[in-house]
Amino acid sequence: MKSPENPGNPAFMREALKEAEKAYRKGEVPVGAVVVRAGRIIARAHNLREHKQSVHGHAEFLALMKAAKKCGTWRLEDCDVYVTMEPCPMCAGAMLQARVHALYYGVRDPKAGVAGSLLNMFELPFNHKPYVESGLLAEESSTLLKAFFKELRNKK
Amino acid sequence: MKSPENPGNPAFMREALKEAEKAYRKGEVPVGAVVVRAGRIIARAHNLREHKQSVHGHAEFLALMKAAKKCGTWRLEDCDVYVTMEPCPMCAGAMLQARVHALYYGVRDPKAGVAGSLLNMFELPFNHKPYVESGLLAEESSTLLKAFFKELRNKK
Repeated sequence: MKSPENPGNPAFMREALKEAEKAYRKGEVPVGAVVVRAGRIIARAHNLREHKQSVHGHAEFLALMKAAKKCGTWRLEDCDVYVTMEPCPMCAGAMLQARVHALYYGVRDPKAGVAGSLLNMFELPFNHKPYVESGLLAEESSTLLKAFFKELRNKK
Repeated sequence: MKSPENPGNPAFMREALKEAEKAYRKGEVPVGAVVVRAGRIIARAHNLREHKQSVHGHAEFLALMKAAKKCGTWRLEDCDVYVTMEPCPMCAGAMLQARVHALYYGVRDPKAGVAGSLLNMFELPFNHKPYVESGLLAEESSTLLKAFFKELRNKK
């Protein structure tokens, strides 16, 4: 684990939350993400799993795909990922594959999160270890998720 | 873990190996995959990470994306994945996300494999557990990988 040479910037997580709100308005689980390089957002995305009916429709995965396209390489070593919820194995695995510099996430996902909840995948002996920080604007993210699931239950 | 109600069919792994050979000829790490539903191959792909410069360019990930597109859903519960090498966390995570019925893989990947090597991700308490079988045509897959890396070293 790297030392926190650049602690999470809440301004970037606010942008990820704006993405999560877009997912909410589309009836998708409200999770949003941005990818930051050299102090600038280079990619942003929100969860579109149901709309796209794609396995890889998670916010941070789509943001990583966009970032790789923009940078013209799968090596995103100078990129940080901000995502409003703890990543699942697929998304955390993509961060390892892309060798991202840091992961900042909001609320924990006790059911499927692997950046400290079910498992800390970033502590395993892979050939890369991003710096990981949790809890950034976690309350805002949690409030949005709770509102979404409450509305979903009421609809049923 | 489900019981092995349908043990791996080597004929499908042969098709995955053909995909791996395509990757080899393109100078990509030779890994191939097919997705099978109701006894038929519905998607096939090979590793294209360097060609596409995409984070998600692994054989089994691309095959899952194609299968989801073909089926019009991210739910691939009636699909089996055949891949010539043990999946990484990103690809194993995608199989969990897609809820695939079974995973059959060839050779182990001691450095990054998470279906028994570094970790058995499918034994963790996620909301889905595919049936997993390893070692199917492992020698053929291993021979291809060794030839690739030998050639790579000779080029350097």
